[in-house]
Amino acid sequence: MSLLVVGTVAFDGLETPFGVRERILGGSATYIGMSAGYFVDRINLVSVVGDDFPQTHIDLLNAHKVHTEGLQVIRGEKTFFWKGKYHMDMNSRDTLDTQLNVLEHFDPIIPESYKDCEYLMLGNLVPAIQMRVLDQLTHRPKLVVLDTMNLWMNVAMEDLKKVLKRVDVLTINDEEARQLSEEHNLVQAAKKIQAMGPQTLIIKKGEHGALLFGPEGQIFFAPALPLAEVFDPTGAGDTFAGGFIGYLAQTKESSFDNMKRALMYAATMASFCVEKFGPERLEHISEAELAERRAQFTQLIHVH
Amino acid sequence: MSLLVVGTVAFDGLETPFGVRERILGGSATYIGMSAGYFVDRINLVSVVGDDFPQTHIDLLNAHKVHTEGLQVIRGEKTFFWKGKYHMDMNSRDTLDTQLNVLEHFDPIIPESYKDCEYLMLGNLVPAIQMRVLDQLTHRPKLVVLDTMNLWMNVAMEDLKKVLKRVDVLTINDEEARQLSEEHNLVQAAKKIQAMGPQTLIIKKGEHGALLFGPEGQIFFAPALPLAEVFDPTGAGDTFAGGFIGYLAQTKESSFDNMKRALMYAATMASFCVEKFGPERLEHISEAELAERRAQFTQLIHVH
Repeated sequence: MSLLVVGTVAFDGLETPFGVRERILGGSATYIGMSAGYFVDRINLVSVVGDDFPQTHIDLLNAHKVHTEGLQVIRGEKTFFWKGKYHMDMNSRDTLDTQLNVLEHFDPIIPESYKDCEYLMLGNLVPAIQMRVLDQLTHRPKLVVLDTMNLWMNVAMEDLKKVLKRVDVLTINDEEARQLSEEHNLVQAAKKIQAMGPQTLIIKKGEHGALLFGPEGQIFFAPALPLAEVFDPTGAGDTFAGGFIGYLAQTKESSFDNMKRALMYAATMASFCVEKFGPERLEHISEAELAERRAQFTQLIHVH
Repeated sequence: MSLLVVGTVAFDGLETPFGVRERILGGSATYIGMSAGYFVDRINLVSVVGDDFPQTHIDLLNAHKVHTEGLQVIRGEKTFFWKGKYHMDMNSRDTLDTQLNVLEHFDPIIPESYKDCEYLMLGNLVPAIQMRVLDQLTHRPKLVVLDTMNLWMNVAMEDLKKVLKRVDVLTINDEEARQLSEEHNLVQAAKKIQAMGPQTLIIKKGEHGALLFGPEGQIFFAPALPLAEVFDPTGAGDTFAGGFIGYLAQTKESSFDNMKRALMYAATMASFCVEKFGPERLEHISEAELAERRAQFTQLIHVH
C-alpha cells in the first residue's frame, strides 16, 4: 500500500462565532494527511510552502505519519494564506483574504519513490496542477480520488473536465455538484457528473451528511453526527476525504460496499475536525475515541 | 386503537417549476389522515370547511379511511384557501395568498364518540384551538403529537408554550426549532424545546431527513430518499406526521425504539407525497410499493 496526497499546505486565518485564530496550520493536504494517518502508516505528501513555514508544523505533519520529502520549500517566498469568516450558520463562509504566494507558480514534483503510488488523493488545487501529478506517475494508481471547488468551475472548467476523465472518485459539495452539472436535483446531477468521468461520486452536504453514488446507480447516504458544539468547520471536507481514502488504502478494497464503510469513517473523522479550531482536534484522537465515535454513527441510524 | 386527527382541510393553489394547480384538495388534516390511512383502519377527523367544499373531496377522504363525522360544514362560508409558490430550491416557498375564511371562527367540536381517543394528532392550527381540543377529551390520550409553524411563534407564542406542556411529541422543521428555542445548534435547540414540555421532539429537515430526540437524550436520524424527481413538496411534512402517528397507532407502542421505526415509515410516506401534485400520490400506494420504498430506505443507509 502506498498513499500519495497532493494538495495545499497553508496558513489559515479563521473567524467563527466562537473565536479567532490569526495564522494557524491549514491547507487541504494537511487535513487529508492528518486524517488518513489514522488509517495507514505512511502518507506521502507533495505540496509547497514558503520559507516562513515553521519547522514545528513540519514536525507535526511527520508525527502524524505524513512524510514531507515531497514538500517543496521555496526560498524568499511566502506560504499560501487564506482567511475566512463563518457566521452562525456554519454551512456558509466569507473569504476575507487569499494570498496565493508560493501556489502561484507551484509545479508539483513527484519524488521518484512516490511515483508508483497505489492510492492517490488529489486535494483541491488548480486542475492543471492535478493533471501534472497524474502525468508523472509511472502507472495508473488503483484508485484516484479528486477534490475540487466552485472556483475552478468558474475559471478553469475545461481543465477540470479533462482531469475528471482520469479519476475514479470525485468529492464535491452539493452546490458545486449543481454548478458542475447544471442540474438542481442531486440524483440527476450525479448522473451527469458520472458521465464526465468519475465512476463514483461523493456529494458532501456538510451538517446534512454525504451521498455516495456508485457506478451501477447505487446510492448510499452517510449522516453527519448532530453535535452540540461545532467550533470551526474549516478542513472538515478535506478531513472527510482523508478518512475516505485512508480507510480504502488500509483495507485495500475499492468495491462499493467498502466505499460505504469508508464513507462512514470519513464522516466520523469530519465530526472530530469541527470540534476544535483548524486541525487541532485531529492531533489527538485515541483509538478508543475513534471506535466510540464510529459506533455513535451506527447508533444514530440503527433501527430494527 | 382510535386515532383522532385535528387540523385544516383546505383548497390549495400551487405553483412549482413543474406546473400549476389552481384549487386542489389540501390542508394539514387531509395529508395526515390520508397518510395514516396506510397504517390504521380508521381515522377520526375534526376540521372545518365551507359549503363550497365538494362532496367528491369528502368521498376521497372517506375512501382513505378518514371519517368525516367531525368535519363541520359552515353554510354560506368559504373553505380555507392557501396559495404558494416553490422555486427550484424546493426547500423554500413563498406564500402568495392566504384566505382564512371558515378558519377564522373555527371552534373544534369533538364528537362524543371521538372523545376517548388513544392517539391524538394535532395538525398545524392556532395553538388556542389545539388547546380547545385537549380540553374536550374525556381522558388524556396515550400519545399526543403536535405540529405547529413559525407563524404561531410570531403571533401566539404564549398560547403555543401552554399547549406544548400538554403534548408528548412535537414535530417542527429546523428553522422553527431555532426560532422556538433561540438556539442555532439543533442539539441545543432540542434540549431547550424538550424542557418546554414535549418529551420527544422531531425536527424535520425536508430533503435532508429528520432527527428524533428522545426523553433520555437519545438521537435518531431518518434520511430522506434522494429522488430524481420532486414535483411538489406541499404536504410532505403533514404526510410525514401522518405516517409517524399512523404507525404508532397501528403498533400500539410508544417506546423510543418503536418511534424510530415510525420515523422511517414517516420518511417513506413523505417520499411518496412529493412525487406528484398535492395529495395525488397518496391516493394510490399499493402495499407492495410501500414495502419496496421502505426497503429502499434501509438500503440507503445499510453498511456492514
